[in-house]
Amino acid sequence: MNIDLNCDLGEAYGNYSFGSDQDIIPLITSANIACGFHAGDENVMNRTIQLAKKHQVGIGAHPGLPDLKGFGRHNMDIAPEEIYNIVIYQLGALNGFCRIHDVKMNHVKPHGALYQMGAKDKNIARAITKAVVDFDSELIFVGLANSLLITEAEKMGIKVVSEVFADRRYEDDGQLVSRKDPNATISNTDEAVQQVLKMVIDNKVVSKNGKDIDIQADTICIHGDGSYALEFVTQIRNKLKKEGIDIQSL
Amino acid sequence: MNIDLNCDLGEAYGNYSFGSDQDIIPLITSANIACGFHAGDENVMNRTIQLAKKHQVGIGAHPGLPDLKGFGRHNMDIAPEEIYNIVIYQLGALNGFCRIHDVKMNHVKPHGALYQMGAKDKNIARAITKAVVDFDSELIFVGLANSLLITEAEKMGIKVVSEVFADRRYEDDGQLVSRKDPNATISNTDEAVQQVLKMVIDNKVVSKNGKDIDIQADTICIHGDGSYALEFVTQIRNKLKKEGIDIQSL
Amino acid sequence: MNIDLNCDLGEAYGNYSFGSDQDIIPLITSANIACGFHAGDENVMNRTIQLAKKHQVGIGAHPGLPDLKGFGRHNMDIAPEEIYNIVIYQLGALNGFCRIHDVKMNHVKPHGALYQMGAKDKNIARAITKAVVDFDSELIFVGLANSLLITEAEKMGIKVVSEVFADRRYEDDGQLVSRKDPNATISNTDEAVQQVLKMVIDNKVVSKNGKDIDIQADTICIHGDGSYALEFVTQIRNKLKKEGIDIQSL
Amino acid sequence: MNIDLNCDLGEAYGNYSFGSDQDIIPLITSANIACGFHAGDENVMNRTIQLAKKHQVGIGAHPGLPDLKGFGRHNMDIAPEEIYNIVIYQLGALNGFCRIHDVKMNHVKPHGALYQMGAKDKNIARAITKAVVDFDSELIFVGLANSLLITEAEKMGIKVVSEVFADRRYEDDGQLVSRKDPNATISNTDEAVQQVLKMVIDNKVVSKNGKDIDIQADTICIHGDGSYALEFVTQIRNKLKKEGIDIQSL
Repeated sequence: MNIDLNCDLGEAYGNYSFGSDQDIIPLITSANIACGFHAGDENVMNRTIQLAKKHQVGIGAHPGLPDLKGFGRHNMDIAPEEIYNIVIYQLGALNGFCRIHDVKMNHVKPHGALYQMGAKDKNIARAITKAVVDFDSELIFVGLANSLLITEAEKMGIKVVSEVFADRRYEDDGQLVSRKDPNATISNTDEAVQQVLKMVIDNKVVSKNGKDIDIQADTICIHGDGSYALEFVTQIRNKLKKEGIDIQSL
Repeated sequence: MNIDLNCDLGEAYGNYSFGSDQDIIPLITSANIACGFHAGDENVMNRTIQLAKKHQVGIGAHPGLPDLKGFGRHNMDIAPEEIYNIVIYQLGALNGFCRIHDVKMNHVKPHGALYQMGAKDKNIARAITKAVVDFDSELIFVGLANSLLITEAEKMGIKVVSEVFADRRYEDDGQLVSRKDPNATISNTDEAVQQVLKMVIDNKVVSKNGKDIDIQADTICIHGDGSYALEFVTQIRNKLKKEGIDIQSL
Repeated sequence: MNIDLNCDLGEAYGNYSFGSDQDIIPLITSANIACGFHAGDENVMNRTIQLAKKHQVGIGAHPGLPDLKGFGRHNMDIAPEEIYNIVIYQLGALNGFCRIHDVKMNHVKPHGALYQMGAKDKNIARAITKAVVDFDSELIFVGLANSLLITEAEKMGIKVVSEVFADRRYEDDGQLVSRKDPNATISNTDEAVQQVLKMVIDNKVVSKNGKDIDIQADTICIHGDGSYALEFVTQIRNKLKKEGIDIQSL
Repeated sequence: MNIDLNCDLGEAYGNYSFGSDQDIIPLITSANIACGFHAGDENVMNRTIQLAKKHQVGIGAHPGLPDLKGFGRHNMDIAPEEIYNIVIYQLGALNGFCRIHDVKMNHVKPHGALYQMGAKDKNIARAITKAVVDFDSELIFVGLANSLLITEAEKMGIKVVSEVFADRRYEDDGQLVSRKDPNATISNTDEAVQQVLKMVIDNKVVSKNGKDIDIQADTICIHGDGSYALEFVTQIRNKLKKEGIDIQSL
């Protein structure tokens, strides 16, 4: 039994730092690297690829919407054909840095609003996943478990992995509880770790209403900023190891 | 004897059109495609690659400085390491669209201030050409004839071609007369065509002071906007053909 | 009886031209000037304010969403507090150019997606109109007739004028027929002119289903690009004058 | 005898924080607020104006070059007419937030490369200072002591104050030692404090070559990030007070 731990990296921009990439990278197995639309720039991308290479984590593209001011978190009403181009452009740009450092791009995970929009809208999901398969059919696509991102990616014939969250609650239908709901997140670390173990071992999660529901857990989303994040991932790693679950890249 | 005719294409942006790509492309052999920093965006790039593929012209990247408002024409005091990353990012992005349309990127020509800065500054020239060779050592590099772009590109061991201008005058040392000089450009079409023929056939150009100087002419820069541009390139094409010079891609 | 004719101006950006500001401005009475977020830049704004001053048209701000690539036409899920700041910033910026040319900003009309979102969402409408009244309570607010922009602006205690369209059809409830509907626009010029006259004289419009509905018509939106636009506005002007309706600024 | 302590504030952007505005503001008397070109955005500007109002510090605009990625620190070869518009736009935008919070903009200090370029180039200095006087002739202009910014601002007939640096060394001609010189900065705090006192009390500074040179010291530039910055300004404040020098806004 094994699981991947992924984290968004390279989200600095120009003079602005962001997150603690140096600290978190030894604790994860896959890095989702921002590509310049919602965060990241060409200088940040170059040094983040080098950091990921040095720590031998799986390298992934983390394309976002063209919304630097909103960190790619504002939903935008963009046509699927444009979403497709947004993804191609960013995969290509990140791949430029993979080429010069002779590393392989391993996976793609959409960011923020692009991820959320794709999870709920079939045409957006199709545009994103078609871009990935057209760019490189060997890429692994990371999407929200139980969402349209997964079903559309599977139809594209691309390798798909389901992402789960340690600290988010789920609805009865397997969707994430909206952040607008006060019960959206799990603040108790033990509870979050238990949720992870159950998802990884049993492929189940207890919904906010107490129902056991099915969930595929291939990779866990790790947050990279704050000292709390480091403690949290360390606890999850320890528990997973104790249970005999390998932590390994996709 | 043969010569390439290159033109900057794909310089529209969002809702803004630019140039007459559809009209000029049948008359040229190499397209330099903007990559999103000084002009162009992901939608424009996708359709421009398709246009270039349809017309079977050589496809090249045309990276510029991050200065959309200034169309990449403001010199910027950016460190060579950052220039290197600026070029890698844009080559990668354009290559994304080459991949999905199964075409090969053939050449790279820097744009505007990046081209001018590289022509005069050894460290900038080195940063640009190192980016090109690191990205893909098979690429052809297009630089200003008699400039540091050519000498530094040659040191990098990359294929280099020298670009000349039909309608610009040259100094005795082979440099372009500055646009600030009232004699910078040739407005008479016959004179411009004569200059082209002499450069292509004899590898010579008459400087503004009347001296015959050496110049390597591998590709001629064609401007893409204005009805005049179309007439001008048509005349050049006719004259070149009459003289038995093949017009063919790099 | 009188009516204002307004047109979006100053939508060029950097090296990109847009519209035919010089041609259309003698035919209109109010100019909505882009403020740099969806279109326009500081150089364009300066020369557009001078053009408007010279032609003595009413000067208005035309703030949009921060989406240059989408020309401010992509709906974005931005919080009302941020919408408020987006409007304040742009009103201030345009007012800088009003100050140096000693002209008064007369009105504000939101652009594109900001206008559409405000027409349908009460919180957005409130954020926009509160920004206008907080910035300068003497400003006139231009909003879509029969929309939430009008009702919320009235609650703010600001001067409000209702905008109508010559070439768009209306639903039975007074809303514009969506552009996704094939019957959204009126292509016949006579029909469009008749619609304008009925709106101005009778404050009525015939809906797409043939019903007579109420509509307040204070200003007519004129499109500024294309030779057709110039002919069209000339016809509207002639008809309005024949009917004894004054064309004058807000 | 009195002196002003100024600091650059509001340099966050979107999701990116920057500096410690909350901590530094009680220790300074003038705030230079970023206006969205090199740093800052409409949301940051709104809350920074509120912070400055609450702490009753002098409010100033801190306009920069359109270079968010480079934090406005890349020199750019922009024409003086465009520099003028760049300044007008940003003064206007910041003034929008001054209006809604009913505070007065007190001063203007150019940022980064704009400041450096203006200090050395007469045409740039003239463009910047003309923009300030045209926007509001009551504004105070803050420029580098002994530079062209000061002499050109004086010719414009605007109120001018000279800025000095506690931790930078000076050339014999009163210019700052370039940062490329290893002796550019003073790392010893006592030495820096002594330099400040001498500049404020005697209007003199000891150049890097040991010569006493004239310098006008109206305001001291305080850096706002790092715990060291807070200690440093506290020491300067204590020394100034001991010497009976009032710390007060421009």
